[in-house]
Amino acid sequence: GPPPLDAEGLLDEHVYHEAADAQMDRLHDWLEPICEAEEEEDFDLELSMGVLTLKLGRHGTYVINKQAPNRQIWFSSPLSGPGRYNLDYAGGLWRSNRDTRSLEGVLSAELSKMLGRPIPPPVS
Amino acid sequence: GPPPLDAEGLLDEHVYHEAADAQMDRLHDWLEPICEAEEEEDFDLELSMGVLTLKLGRHGTYVINKQAPNRQIWFSSPLSGPGRYNLDYAGGLWRSNRDTRSLEGVLSAELSKMLGRPIPPPVS
Repeated sequence: GPPPLDAEGLLDEHVYHEAADAQMDRLHDWLEPICEAEEEEDFDLELSMGVLTLKLGRHGTYVINKQAPNRQIWFSSPLSGPGRYNLDYAGGLWRSNRDTRSLEGVLSAELSKMLGRPIPPPVS
Repeated sequence: GPPPLDAEGLLDEHVYHEAADAQMDRLHDWLEPICEAEEEEDFDLELSMGVLTLKLGRHGTYVINKQAPNRQIWFSSPLSGPGRYNLDYAGGLWRSNRDTRSLEGVLSAELSKMLGRPIPPPVS
């Protein structure tokens, strides 16, 4: 069905937090073994207060954070700059408001390039 | 004098980290009492791994982070979106690469608007 909206036409806040928290947890669980496998001492991953930080040393730092007022997840990439993602409620994915690519797909592609090995997106 | 540059013409990496860490610490020390004075339970401030997170409940979340490869500080505002700041080495301030406004000046103006009271920038 269609996404549940609030009186202002925004995605219901409870639904937003549930879906965004699930996405953040999923990203963390996906990225943790990838980050550890690199065995680089200046690589680090942290999820705190709805903000996921992925430090990749000389490659730079990713920051992915919840932005509840507009029901988005904001993304900051050292490779591609800033991006904003909205929930594709039917598909259960967060998609770029620019080109509808999924957050996981974008990260998968960028990390594969940076780390020089294939980093497939998390399995559903 | 002019800023010390490395072989690639970027700001010397050690100088970058020292100046960026000092800016992050200064922002944290400035914002901590402001955040606490609001007495809102969904407001929070955290500085971890070179990433400063300021959660302002219904107003949204600020994320300010070091981006070492290009010697910048990146800024993500729920009010004005993303911004990138370079060190003004002579002046000792971090300035927007778009309009040369200082990071502290931009935050001061935005927080004053959001919180509905004057939030002066930190004193030098």
